[in-house]
Amino acid sequence: MILDRCDIPIVGAPLAGGPSTPELAAAVCDAGGLGFLAAGYLSAPELERRRRRTEQITSRPFGVNLFCPGPAGDASRVREYAAVIEKDAHAAGAALGAPRHDDDDWDAKVEYLLAHPVPVVSFTFGIPGPEVIGDLRAAGCETWVTVTTLAEARRAAEAGADLLVAQGYEAGGHRGGVSDSAHDAVGLIALLQLITARLPTPVAACGGIATGAAIAAVLCLGARAAALGTAFLDCPEAGTAAVHRARLHAAPPEEAPPTRLTRAFSGRTARGIENGFLLAHSAGAPAAYPEVHHLTTPMRKAAREAGLADYVNLWAGQAYPLTGARPAGDVVRELWAQARAVLGQSSARHA
Amino acid sequence: MILDRCDIPIVGAPLAGGPSTPELAAAVCDAGGLGFLAAGYLSAPELERRRRRTEQITSRPFGVNLFCPGPAGDASRVREYAAVIEKDAHAAGAALGAPRHDDDDWDAKVEYLLAHPVPVVSFTFGIPGPEVIGDLRAAGCETWVTVTTLAEARRAAEAGADLLVAQGYEAGGHRGGVSDSAHDAVGLIALLQLITARLPTPVAACGGIATGAAIAAVLCLGARAAALGTAFLDCPEAGTAAVHRARLHAAPPEEAPPTRLTRAFSGRTARGIENGFLLAHSAGAPAAYPEVHHLTTPMRKAAREAGLADYVNLWAGQAYPLTGARPAGDVVRELWAQARAVLGQSSARHA
Repeated sequence: MILDRCDIPIVGAPLAGGPSTPELAAAVCDAGGLGFLAAGYLSAPELERRRRRTEQITSRPFGVNLFCPGPAGDASRVREYAAVIEKDAHAAGAALGAPRHDDDDWDAKVEYLLAHPVPVVSFTFGIPGPEVIGDLRAAGCETWVTVTTLAEARRAAEAGADLLVAQGYEAGGHRGGVSDSAHDAVGLIALLQLITARLPTPVAACGGIATGAAIAAVLCLGARAAALGTAFLDCPEAGTAAVHRARLHAAPPEEAPPTRLTRAFSGRTARGIENGFLLAHSAGAPAAYPEVHHLTTPMRKAAREAGLADYVNLWAGQAYPLTGARPAGDVVRELWAQARAVLGQSSARHA
Repeated sequence: MILDRCDIPIVGAPLAGGPSTPELAAAVCDAGGLGFLAAGYLSAPELERRRRRTEQITSRPFGVNLFCPGPAGDASRVREYAAVIEKDAHAAGAALGAPRHDDDDWDAKVEYLLAHPVPVVSFTFGIPGPEVIGDLRAAGCETWVTVTTLAEARRAAEAGADLLVAQGYEAGGHRGGVSDSAHDAVGLIALLQLITARLPTPVAACGGIATGAAIAAVLCLGARAAALGTAFLDCPEAGTAAVHRARLHAAPPEEAPPTRLTRAFSGRTARGIENGFLLAHSAGAPAAYPEVHHLTTPMRKAAREAGLADYVNLWAGQAYPLTGARPAGDVVRELWAQARAVLGQSSARHA
């Protein structure tokens, strides 16, 4: 497995929509972890460009993450939601986008990766069919599938996944499994116990991991690696918007606004820091991805540029107040040193 | 601290409403852990009776858990809800109860414990004032407070709590902190990182802990002990209803029905296995505790006796499919042996 070729069992989770960059992936890899390029929202040519750039700046293996296409949402509910949020788009200095359904250039990106394989391809928002997984493996790609429940984990294992990325309730950004129901979210500790008790497939753990102690914890729970996303959001190598970075550290942890699961920004459930748009529209937002994503794209872009935090999707996991603004390589090395120290101390005390 | 007098850092969490018994608390204590008597829903004389019984069957220290009183709910919303669920009560062979507000005999139970202290008094549903905590400590009781967010943890520490019971999103039964909003629930791994990073107060961890690996994990995260509730539900020493026990093991874990947070049964947010009543009424149930608890008491009692699982509050944490039906002492000893082995192996591999 690719993780056997990494010195440090820390994965830089893909952060689609801006934060993920070739520089961030390369920095995680060069420190001994496994970096990912997020190909969600990218065309196949843009994926190729970023992949080439990453290969120019690191000689280490890295992964590429794809969004699996899903069903269209209810068009009438999308129209109703558009009417509700139009004033918000205007307040941010933008119009609404066209709420189209699309497959995120899925076929072209899969074709590209089959022709030009990378060491790992991971999947979000669904479980690819056994033929896609089989073709990618035959081309030389290890396949990882994001799962949020034990039932999803079993389906992914049966489809041939080489590794399951177990995403806990705590995780920032989109829920990455098949289920889009917030009710189905399982806390990471419970999810890891359930999966490892029932399936032999290797697992990586993500969701709310911000410290070496949490890395030690998921290794104890049987994970082969800890996947961190929010912990890298404010790294200088990330492409995170300034207004997003500022909100990560706007208050001491006790007073930091909580995060919440919401469909308000994209039509698919994701965790972000509570702000005006999220609180106003979470209750009414339909399950319609990527229609709602496209609807709010101009609003979010304008708000990012204008520094209007209330209209930006401030994706973050529940441990976000503990993250900092350090180079990604330092994050990898320091957290791993902490994790090893915690394991040694806990073992010495109890085992 | 009382935990320093226990051989095994496993707490038997209080399970009010039936499962908690003197026999269960004593069995946890005698195995080397720390058992709790749940005094919620009990009168002060009944608490005294159970406490005396526990002292007759174990010489080890144990704790008593109290419910802190809270504000009354909106009476008109309770009336509306009663009209909606009346047919469910009838279907279970019962009438609705009277939806009164009460303080769970708080003053009398605190007075009793001040006059007849136990080694530990823990609190659920709120943070007692510094004077109650100070009086109990002066009487010789260690005070533990259940918290569900970092902000609650800081308030409890400032009120003088000796230990914080950090309850994660995964936990079965009622959310035990001040907040009754499901949106405020924090996954255990994130909650422990946040609290231990900011507060020096000792912490015990609860929520979704069903294996030795999870105990090892929370110890790595800085917890002084792991508190398990659901793991003891089907022990022979517990008073859990047969219909509740049966639903814990009705399907293999992949097919086991999920749990969900709901106010449907009690008017306060709690996690239970999805069943007919929960799915039908979670969306409409008001925040009104214990009014709704009293409203549904006859329905739940009749349904337990008739084996009608769809009308019973099937409290369970998210890892419930991994629990078994074994004597409580075996649970404590076996999980601790597993936890020690996991710590040793993880340390040997990585540290």
